[in-house]
Amino acid sequence: MIGKLNHVAIAVPDITEASKTYRNVFGAKVSEQIDQPEHGVKIVFIKLPNTQIELISPLNKNSPISKFLKKNPNGGIHHLCYEVENIDLAIEKLSEKDFGLLEPGKPKLGAHGKPVIFLHPSKCNGTLIELQQE
Amino acid sequence: MIGKLNHVAIAVPDITEASKTYRNVFGAKVSEQIDQPEHGVKIVFIKLPNTQIELISPLNKNSPISKFLKKNPNGGIHHLCYEVENIDLAIEKLSEKDFGLLEPGKPKLGAHGKPVIFLHPSKCNGTLIELQQE
Repeated sequence: MIGKLNHVAIAVPDITEASKTYRNVFGAKVSEQIDQPEHGVKIVFIKLPNTQIELISPLNKNSPISKFLKKNPNGGIHHLCYEVENIDLAIEKLSEKDFGLLEPGKPKLGAHGKPVIFLHPSKCNGTLIELQQE
Repeated sequence: MIGKLNHVAIAVPDITEASKTYRNVFGAKVSEQIDQPEHGVKIVFIKLPNTQIELISPLNKNSPISKFLKKNPNGGIHHLCYEVENIDLAIEKLSEKDFGLLEPGKPKLGAHGKPVIFLHPSKCNGTLIELQQE
């Protein structure tokens, strides 16, 4: 079912500083900042040869990332995103195996403009997993 | 400096259960368990088309993973490993930028039999980063 690792999302308290570390210290290709008010986050992509790192930071106080950063003030790895060929089929298979979604129901449009679902960390070794249609 | 994402390491309390989830629920290619007494861990690789996930679990009570699992009993993402062309050059560049290593000095032989260093999470947005020679 799962294919490529689409991205690793790292929540950071200061996206400008974090981008500088990846650009100037690690010498990585770093995108411009992209604000996504509909998701309450700002994002910077670190382009690696085989996948990408997504730096995410809150855009406002009600951001879904704020709670995570309160618990992890220095930042931390927030989630992993695996690609799936067909998100509806993935949901069907997961429900057959009684494998709960974080928010059951239809997939939502994710930050990359593709349908996504999130799996509950309690079922996945404490890791938040996003499945994104290829 | 950094190249491919070599692996994402997920610390898990029960490596057999975690392997089953990846094999049976996620339909991923899962390796046999590899015991590494010299590192105090047992490892299972999840082979994805573009990178790999490394499930790690303690082999004994003094394992470097035990402390992490005490803090995160369900497991969690432990570190990211980026490849670098030349580990000695990477150490030189990091020290020029006053960017501390977790254990300063020479690189060690990592779990993949290649020279590695670890960077301090306080410098990297709360994420533990391993650099591994290609």
